[in-house]
Amino acid sequence: MKRKVTLKQIAKELDVSISTVSRALSNSKEIGEETRQKIQAFAKFYNYRPNNIALSLKNKKTKTIGILIPEIVHHFFSTVIRGIEIVANKRGYNVIIGLSNESFSKEVINMEMLANGSIDGFILSISKETLLQQDYHHFKETISQGIPIVMFDRVINEVDCDKVIVDDYKGSINAVKKLIATGCKNIALITTMDYVSVGKLRTQGYLKALEDHRINPKASLILKLDDSLALEEHLDILEREIEQFFKNNDKIDGIFAVNELYAVTAMKVARKLDFRIPEDIQVIGFTDGVLSKHARPSLTTVSQHGQKMGEQAANLLIDRLELDDEEDDVYVDENEIDMDFKTVVIETELIERESTK
Amino acid sequence: MKRKVTLKQIAKELDVSISTVSRALSNSKEIGEETRQKIQAFAKFYNYRPNNIALSLKNKKTKTIGILIPEIVHHFFSTVIRGIEIVANKRGYNVIIGLSNESFSKEVINMEMLANGSIDGFILSISKETLLQQDYHHFKETISQGIPIVMFDRVINEVDCDKVIVDDYKGSINAVKKLIATGCKNIALITTMDYVSVGKLRTQGYLKALEDHRINPKASLILKLDDSLALEEHLDILEREIEQFFKNNDKIDGIFAVNELYAVTAMKVARKLDFRIPEDIQVIGFTDGVLSKHARPSLTTVSQHGQKMGEQAANLLIDRLELDDEEDDVYVDENEIDMDFKTVVIETELIERESTK
Repeated sequence: MKRKVTLKQIAKELDVSISTVSRALSNSKEIGEETRQKIQAFAKFYNYRPNNIALSLKNKKTKTIGILIPEIVHHFFSTVIRGIEIVANKRGYNVIIGLSNESFSKEVINMEMLANGSIDGFILSISKETLLQQDYHHFKETISQGIPIVMFDRVINEVDCDKVIVDDYKGSINAVKKLIATGCKNIALITTMDYVSVGKLRTQGYLKALEDHRINPKASLILKLDDSLALEEHLDILEREIEQFFKNNDKIDGIFAVNELYAVTAMKVARKLDFRIPEDIQVIGFTDGVLSKHARPSLTTVSQHGQKMGEQAANLLIDRLELDDEEDDVYVDENEIDMDFKTVVIETELIERESTK
Repeated sequence: MKRKVTLKQIAKELDVSISTVSRALSNSKEIGEETRQKIQAFAKFYNYRPNNIALSLKNKKTKTIGILIPEIVHHFFSTVIRGIEIVANKRGYNVIIGLSNESFSKEVINMEMLANGSIDGFILSISKETLLQQDYHHFKETISQGIPIVMFDRVINEVDCDKVIVDDYKGSINAVKKLIATGCKNIALITTMDYVSVGKLRTQGYLKALEDHRINPKASLILKLDDSLALEEHLDILEREIEQFFKNNDKIDGIFAVNELYAVTAMKVARKLDFRIPEDIQVIGFTDGVLSKHARPSLTTVSQHGQKMGEQAANLLIDRLELDDEEDDVYVDENEIDMDFKTVVIETELIERESTK
């Protein structure tokens, strides 16, 4: 873990006086623009926060939960937020949402901003860039300042905190087994890049199901797509990629896609190429959103129960916040606070609809 | 030091509504003298001083925009947020989101929380309960504290501020004219309750188009649905309501629905009752989301350009924030600040797909 940096260390590192650092951080015009920017960037990178702010805020409860998510145009994340809200409202808490846009620095900035007295604790799902860089110092810093974090869906082992995850691996195994049981011989996987933990787990589940049935996986049957293709403005490219994939693999008779957009787009392409669903090709997606329900044929999918995840995450966080309160009241030594963090696994469910036999 | 008290705590303590507390503190004559004095005395005792806080923070720029929206599980709002984010990022601002859940008191609480130094200005869409109660004092208070507001989509005339609206009225006229031009004689409207301004405008557009073509509107052809039916857990009820509506009106040959969920559900019901689309019944929705694109047949719809709305709203707000900055620098009298508020109208567009001829 990166040590919390002091004014003195910043000054030494950049070979300027402490007073220069201090003035630069308070945005003083006495310091030249370039120096100021350099010092501010350095301080931000090392998550410098004056001690007195954190201390003075320590006992001020805001009764507000900060939610940090990668993006908002995403049915799964919005159902999680709804779950958090339901529990938060019931237990007298408010919520406020920050977006990382899958960017590491936006995640850090938002976390810093909200941690400065606006919220009591965080519920968050990690940005892709953070997962790629494997830089988790901001989470550790926040926790060490007495602000608890609950991670959901995209979580990491490197940070000790409460977590709520979906059983992506088992859910994927069940989906692929369903395809095998109904006669599919050439099952394709449409997935994301590996560094997204959930995409990786779903890929592993696909491979495990094949292995259990002594089917050799073929690299040519696995399509890894950049997640930016899920953006509305890139839907055409997504469709073309999947069409090309079909043309390269004319024996595909089953598709497991790691999200519903990929699944619905695959169905669209299959129809265009005159395959019948489910007679010629069966399709299963992941995430039970509006798209799955309203697609034609309607999509068999692995439901993640996003709302339930949100509810669980909110209960874990509020339980911990209120446990801390009680312990503050009886002057328990901070070091003795119960640090048994929980990881709650939400079971997935295969919802069978028209896209499978 | 006494803990800082919030509006909510005062309301709870004195067993009155948040709105009563807020209005009593702004000296509203709508609140009885005795109640007002009691609330003011209580607030004073607990050191509640919103104006001082705002004043002390006046020159502290956070470079953060507060977004307040009614709900998150809504494609339109998420595309607006994306638009705000694009412009905010480009111009060096961060965003933070609060949800009103269509509740007046949550809107007031979130506004108060964010206005206390977390944000420089608001971009918001008004909650249904606020529209129903017509109580807008919290917007006026916020503006009078020097925090600018830009309203989008659900706006009101009673508050002077920048606004971004969709041309709901004209968009609806065009949609219904399209149905008339392609031969529909019995055009049904599936809409929301009247107090939601956009639902009202879309209903008026429907009536205007009929009137322009000398078609008498029939009350029996207008289905007004409670918006809670759009919630996922109520989709079955929504379907049954629309099915009953079809059964009561067997001559329907065209449907204009004020959102895409109503439109897609109407298509589902029509197919169930053995109508062909678009041969027997044509359908047009409002909002161009994923549902419209992926429905089968794909849905002709009025696109609101949510992202463009968000971009415009963010530009209006940041322009005003930076205008204020400049004027602070040259010590212009506050009363002379340019108060020419703009209302930007985003034109809708009829996107023709398979559900119409």
